[in-house]
Amino acid sequence: MPNLEETVAALTRRVEQLEDERAIQKVLNTYGLSVDADNPEAMGQLYAEDCVIDIDGMFFNGREDAKRIVTGEGHQAILPNCAHVMGPFAITLDGTNAVATGYATIFVRENGTVGIWRQAYIRWELVKRDGRWQVLKRYSRTTGKVESQALLNAAL
Amino acid sequence: MPNLEETVAALTRRVEQLEDERAIQKVLNTYGLSVDADNPEAMGQLYAEDCVIDIDGMFFNGREDAKRIVTGEGHQAILPNCAHVMGPFAITLDGTNAVATGYATIFVRENGTVGIWRQAYIRWELVKRDGRWQVLKRYSRTTGKVESQALLNAAL
Amino acid sequence: MPNLEETVAALTRRVEQLEDERAIQKVLNTYGLSVDADNPEAMGQLYAEDCVIDIDGMFFNGREDAKRIVTGEGHQAILPNCAHVMGPFAITLDGTNAVATGYATIFVRENGTVGIWRQAYIRWELVKRDGRWQVLKRYSRTTGKVESQALLNAAL
Repeated sequence: MPNLEETVAALTRRVEQLEDERAIQKVLNTYGLSVDADNPEAMGQLYAEDCVIDIDGMFFNGREDAKRIVTGEGHQAILPNCAHVMGPFAITLDGTNAVATGYATIFVRENGTVGIWRQAYIRWELVKRDGRWQVLKRYSRTTGKVESQALLNAAL
Repeated sequence: MPNLEETVAALTRRVEQLEDERAIQKVLNTYGLSVDADNPEAMGQLYAEDCVIDIDGMFFNGREDAKRIVTGEGHQAILPNCAHVMGPFAITLDGTNAVATGYATIFVRENGTVGIWRQAYIRWELVKRDGRWQVLKRYSRTTGKVESQALLNAAL
Repeated sequence: MPNLEETVAALTRRVEQLEDERAIQKVLNTYGLSVDADNPEAMGQLYAEDCVIDIDGMFFNGREDAKRIVTGEGHQAILPNCAHVMGPFAITLDGTNAVATGYATIFVRENGTVGIWRQAYIRWELVKRDGRWQVLKRYSRTTGKVESQALLNAAL
């Protein structure tokens, strides 16, 4: 039978896992806010310095480059009409690494009507560095292609 | 080194924060259900007695007045065809206060087709009173206006 | 005043509840992934052996039968164009039982445009067996009918 010190230490580790998952969820939920807010600095802080982003084969390498997601022509054209509604995500934790797999649905208002501008399956790979969860890799695969299902199956 | 009593007390406070966030999430998730259920009483209980609701400059003051969100003509006209899909929300806790910022997407079925009736950025300010989290203030800003981005930036 | 052993035991039960809710959320979030991934085996594992599924009066009985949700003609016709965006859900825990009530929004891409193919209120009844949360009953009621509101009111 473990003594009370050991019991408390084990419980502490379980609480840390719950806190980690909450922190990851907040990073993912904040992503949409930052791009819809036209705030590349806030968005950049969600990514690791050495992040790699692959959106249907369009690549962004590193945090500075990632900010182009917000500052680029494509995104600027849908501001302020867009809503990047992310999730839900199935999250798997493994120490200081985590994977979150789910959906990205981007709504855009055009001529007074809101429609769906883009929808994709999305996989986020996160790492905890300096006590903060950051996105290291992001893969986004638009719906409508059989090969996109592999991204989902990797989480099952 | 803290003694075991102190360690357990600190861990208890961390668990309380996780429970608080879960409770807040439940309030926000229940909001949609209550309005789609045509249930102004259940919806009213989510708001504080002295709540202030500002939906694109249309105001509701206090819990009784808030019930008009459900009983009003506009909402009654979309029942039972609506789905108030709320979130996701980035939540920040500060003791007995909390802020949740995210999305409100309202779908309505019309002539057999489901479309998006309204989409907005939304900010909930909650307070814990008598052991229960309640909405004290709610701001909703429709997408499509540059000034709506301020609501999002306040959370970044 | 409780002694430290009792305090730690009570705290452990609270952490277990948070872990239970996280596990339930993961089951529900994984459901969408498994059907969009065309993966009936992964989907089947989310359901209990003796599950009952009632989708607007169309019934599936037991795990094997449930797999037809994926393998059936209707679902195969919308692959790989679909995104089963589930939630949010208001979750109520009661020991080894739980109820999650919320939304199912199914998007389908057709001729390059993503629209809403089906939207419903949904109630999941889950049970924890062998340390794993599984779906025992699922009720899905399409929006657009007054009687569908009863599903939501049962959660309020």
